[in-house]
Amino acid sequence: MKNPYASTAPAEVRALIRAQKITGQTSGMCEGFAQANLIVLPYKYAYDFLLFAQRNPKSCPVLEVSEPGDRLLRRIAQTDIATDIPKYRIYENGVLAAEVTDASAYWREDLVSFLIGCSFSFEGELLEAGVSVRHIEQNRNVPMYLTNLPCDPAGALHGNLVVSMRPLPPEQIVRAVTATAAMPRVHGAPVHIGDPAQIGIADLAKPDFGEAVTVNPGETPVFWACGVTPQAVVMASKPTFAITHAPGHMLITDQRNVLLKD
Amino acid sequence: MKNPYASTAPAEVRALIRAQKITGQTSGMCEGFAQANLIVLPYKYAYDFLLFAQRNPKSCPVLEVSEPGDRLLRRIAQTDIATDIPKYRIYENGVLAAEVTDASAYWREDLVSFLIGCSFSFEGELLEAGVSVRHIEQNRNVPMYLTNLPCDPAGALHGNLVVSMRPLPPEQIVRAVTATAAMPRVHGAPVHIGDPAQIGIADLAKPDFGEAVTVNPGETPVFWACGVTPQAVVMASKPTFAITHAPGHMLITDQRNVLLKD
Repeated sequence: MKNPYASTAPAEVRALIRAQKITGQTSGMCEGFAQANLIVLPYKYAYDFLLFAQRNPKSCPVLEVSEPGDRLLRRIAQTDIATDIPKYRIYENGVLAAEVTDASAYWREDLVSFLIGCSFSFEGELLEAGVSVRHIEQNRNVPMYLTNLPCDPAGALHGNLVVSMRPLPPEQIVRAVTATAAMPRVHGAPVHIGDPAQIGIADLAKPDFGEAVTVNPGETPVFWACGVTPQAVVMASKPTFAITHAPGHMLITDQRNVLLKD
Repeated sequence: MKNPYASTAPAEVRALIRAQKITGQTSGMCEGFAQANLIVLPYKYAYDFLLFAQRNPKSCPVLEVSEPGDRLLRRIAQTDIATDIPKYRIYENGVLAAEVTDASAYWREDLVSFLIGCSFSFEGELLEAGVSVRHIEQNRNVPMYLTNLPCDPAGALHGNLVVSMRPLPPEQIVRAVTATAAMPRVHGAPVHIGDPAQIGIADLAKPDFGEAVTVNPGETPVFWACGVTPQAVVMASKPTFAITHAPGHMLITDQRNVLLKD
């Protein structure tokens, strides 16, 4: 049931990823350690993106920003951000141009990397609190949906909110809210509980990113802001160039989730 | 005991400030509404400052950022930021050049305003929780101190952390920590509890900003990150130009403190 890398050290898993021995999604790996979303943009968009993140803190809680042109991170992980994520997406003018397991060939001197908190960080808390996490039970990537909720724009950047969804029986919803509200740096409390249509989701069985999961009779879908939102922003705003992680294929950091609470 | 403007609406107090009928410090005004620190910088420093804030979220929780050159705020308050603060400080090359009650004459087309959460926002919570707030009891400005703790630098900006201090009897410290930890957007939990010398404060009776308060026998000084930190950054990093609020003389926003909890 547990992920085979659940108890492996982050640096060890990152080395396997760098060697392309792990190229799949990372949910359940390195329990207790934060995972992070990636968005890489040319410096000319860096201020607009940081402002976008400030204005949309639930979807874009920034954990670290690289120096321009620098592939190395030094705060949340000692890592080369161009190689240590299992799968990357390359965007040109807002269009997906390639999906690669190593982004080195696409790196440029003017790129700035933004690492963003991930809901995987609060899933340990949910499980501890007795809240079910369906996609972990079903060993799938989390289902993610593009909503009709516009983010607060900043400069050249605009787009709609992306959410992740976990179906919950009624008696688990309160605990799910309180457990995640305490972790604002990894998306915090849910943004929506209940009717998917109200936020523009037509069919839960057809997520825009990740994989669908079973919703049992009597369960309510609970939606959290998702760090894939910057990819929706890239598709909507069409910056000349961008690199992101592939949804669910995260950077595994050296930062313990528990330290993201204050 | 209560501030005469404790129950006045924020827009009404801002109008009195704009008319220069209020020019003093704002602690205790408009109970329940957030107050904010101000730092205004030329656009060429805006990315560095936003990154500095991201790297130092306890001292610089950003509540709103203006468009370049725009004096009007639209999110946390409908307000003209050049006139609606009781007292401003003008810095040229890191040196205090003037203290004014209206900053209009100093405004420029390239200025960006950053509004930062203020510990006044959690003082209502402290009082509700039965925690004493000495400077309110003594009707003074809060005492603030420049520490020897370096902030995490960003680009051209660096400097040491500034803290506010409230002396507490031992039985109130835990409640003070838990009440403020729940409000990360207004500095959150304390950064230091106890011996002032350990963070470079030689004499509690001589604050660097604000006014000293009585510390009773048996009380422990408790220190929170303070939104005056950007002023210490300006003095240390010497940007060509900056405008700040005068310590304790805040923007009173239309945002209820309770909404800063999520």
